[in-house]
Amino acid sequence: MERTLVNKLANNLNKEIKLQGWIHKIRKLGKIAFLLLRDRTGIVQCVINTKEINLDGLKLESVIELTGIACKSYNDEKNYEIQTKSLEILSIVKEDIPLEVNKDTLDSNLDTILNNRVLSLRNLKINAIFKIEAAIAHGFSKFLLDNGFTEIFTPKIVSDGAEGGTELFKVDYFGRNAYLAQSPQFYKQMLVGAGYERVFEIGHVYRAESHDSKRHINEFVSLDLEMAFIKDETDLINFETNLLKYIFDYLKTNCKNELEILNVSIPTITNGIPMLSLSKAISILQEEYNKTDLTNDIDHEGEELISKYAKEAFNSDFIFLTHYPKSKRPMYTMPDENGTTTHSFDLIFRGIEITTGGQRIHNYEFLKENIVKKGLSPKDFSSYLNIFKYGMPPHGGLAIGLERLTYRLLELDNIREAVLFTRDKTRLNP
Amino acid sequence: MERTLVNKLANNLNKEIKLQGWIHKIRKLGKIAFLLLRDRTGIVQCVINTKEINLDGLKLESVIELTGIACKSYNDEKNYEIQTKSLEILSIVKEDIPLEVNKDTLDSNLDTILNNRVLSLRNLKINAIFKIEAAIAHGFSKFLLDNGFTEIFTPKIVSDGAEGGTELFKVDYFGRNAYLAQSPQFYKQMLVGAGYERVFEIGHVYRAESHDSKRHINEFVSLDLEMAFIKDETDLINFETNLLKYIFDYLKTNCKNELEILNVSIPTITNGIPMLSLSKAISILQEEYNKTDLTNDIDHEGEELISKYAKEAFNSDFIFLTHYPKSKRPMYTMPDENGTTTHSFDLIFRGIEITTGGQRIHNYEFLKENIVKKGLSPKDFSSYLNIFKYGMPPHGGLAIGLERLTYRLLELDNIREAVLFTRDKTRLNP
Repeated sequence: MERTLVNKLANNLNKEIKLQGWIHKIRKLGKIAFLLLRDRTGIVQCVINTKEINLDGLKLESVIELTGIACKSYNDEKNYEIQTKSLEILSIVKEDIPLEVNKDTLDSNLDTILNNRVLSLRNLKINAIFKIEAAIAHGFSKFLLDNGFTEIFTPKIVSDGAEGGTELFKVDYFGRNAYLAQSPQFYKQMLVGAGYERVFEIGHVYRAESHDSKRHINEFVSLDLEMAFIKDETDLINFETNLLKYIFDYLKTNCKNELEILNVSIPTITNGIPMLSLSKAISILQEEYNKTDLTNDIDHEGEELISKYAKEAFNSDFIFLTHYPKSKRPMYTMPDENGTTTHSFDLIFRGIEITTGGQRIHNYEFLKENIVKKGLSPKDFSSYLNIFKYGMPPHGGLAIGLERLTYRLLELDNIREAVLFTRDKTRLNP
Repeated sequence: MERTLVNKLANNLNKEIKLQGWIHKIRKLGKIAFLLLRDRTGIVQCVINTKEINLDGLKLESVIELTGIACKSYNDEKNYEIQTKSLEILSIVKEDIPLEVNKDTLDSNLDTILNNRVLSLRNLKINAIFKIEAAIAHGFSKFLLDNGFTEIFTPKIVSDGAEGGTELFKVDYFGRNAYLAQSPQFYKQMLVGAGYERVFEIGHVYRAESHDSKRHINEFVSLDLEMAFIKDETDLINFETNLLKYIFDYLKTNCKNELEILNVSIPTITNGIPMLSLSKAISILQEEYNKTDLTNDIDHEGEELISKYAKEAFNSDFIFLTHYPKSKRPMYTMPDENGTTTHSFDLIFRGIEITTGGQRIHNYEFLKENIVKKGLSPKDFSSYLNIFKYGMPPHGGLAIGLERLTYRLLELDNIREAVLFTRDKTRLNP
């Protein structure tokens, strides 16, 4: 007999079927037991005559195969239950499991949840997080494919940091020093110039930052894109707005169940996303919230307050901050005509930066000059810099942190809840 | 005016349009010049009156914006050309470019091609390779999503090697020793057990092997999948067969142009893929090819010869080798009932192994025993081993090397031609 999935019971009413899955719960009432079987698609109640099938000592979370007749539920016409005929144990649990995974909400602390990752993921709410995260990545990739982008796979072992800098993990590469890539920045620009024009990558990036906050991890998935023939950063801002709308619609269609389980409301983006220049944002923070410690950058408290402001003033969960000063942006960022700010932006979502983006410099001499102005040496960037000699179109791009977007979208307490296996200063296991 | 792409000319006949792209070729004939403009979708001839538009000194591969009227081609009714009105240079090339990218086939050697990656990728044939490679990855992901799989993102910084071993790149992780993952093996098994049942990952894996062959690179993209509730390895073999059929159909639909440019014929899989046990394959190699140096494994020459045999005997580009001996498989491989071979297989495609797969052990005691038998210590695998205590379904999986599949599918000379930016013993740049 072929296996039937729990979400296909409607097609198999009054037939004998075979189910496979985990024992979610058992409740005994005299000679009758009600066993909840859980598979990847749902949970179904199986009615068992304990005189015929002995359940003594059978522990929760054991893996079983069960045959029976699929019926309408006795108590709930819209639901199904199984009149069990046979039960076989495929994988037995001998010890009591250390987490009550069948609870609505796991009441363990984050460390216990992460240490027992495989078990905590069996909890329906925690399980749903990663189906949504995967769907965000698919929505991203689908929108870009529909818009003429080519997916790229670029190296994560690199000889230098893209941002010319610090906070790199060092790799012993056949006796040579190498590093883990902080971003695919140089490679995606190079591939725009290679004629693909529009490229995207979904891949791990690495930051050896040693802070220990709710919103930082050291290995994360970056949703990166880069596109040629843009006018300026406003093309990117509009593009990201449409991209996010698409992803949210994709989630509403493809993750109905999971969104319900987590009781999440997806933000609606109706008339675009509001924008403020960074300097305007800083003066709003001064005037409205008496936050006077910012000059030409924004800190985490500032991000939270400006999100609050965006919600109150524009009824928006998102806000673009634009015109970051040259001093705060990497050497490849296109300066504004005024010479002090840049064609760049951040996107703040519910109190946290989820995107940095902007137009890049595409002129060889100008880029070389800018590298020198930043106190860096053009020699160190030669394989990147050289491509600008041979016909590089105007271009720009952005990156979305997948775990950050998931973390804020689902309003989780800590970004680590949006990572299957967290890598941070202390955590290298499991 | 909005930009028109070269592949949208048919919709804009006799209209004034704006094109953007690279100068692929220029041919001057008296007062008339024919400029081939190349964008990401194709190439179009632009007719230019050189009395009105001065092309002197304009080098190939410069990026231009051009306006003109889209017409049917004078010489070829099925084609289009542009009667140019204006031309603006967006990004100038000052030096002659070091590669003749507009040639049908680049005649440079591999090192030159890889050193000048951005330029070599502008060659139509080389450019097409990576559109096909991206489409293989999409086909893979689409088939798995349609079959109830969840995409996963697992850490590439790990505390131990999955295969318990050697050939690992070492990372300095906040002063602790860590390694780059050789495969997502343990994680994908853990996530099967976490209730997702069917998971896949498209991600980089790392092998610090120092050999220097046409078919090895040190960082590659692994198309990994793992699935629960299989009967044995034959379920995986059938699944991979259908997956490959799907990917090839996907390429035929989505990469028509690129397959034509590369003049590639996609293999057809009609009645499944032939299978041979490894021992049977070894005796065929002895009898048919007088290859007598194999006992219980196959080497590269053996893979090439058995492919030759598969072509001659079964008219197949693929062959599954099954029943590998226990001694040649990792500790998590499910042994056969006979105690000497395993429920595992390799898939050989046109002379090279592109997949290793098999059923895994799902019983805690049995796995622990097997770890000890392999001379390893269960303590070193505790975070992996522990999950088998709490209800692990029967399962198995496989991995396909993306670059290897591309390399053999396109019949390239070297796997490096199927990598955007190669990482090997000597190459860490660009």
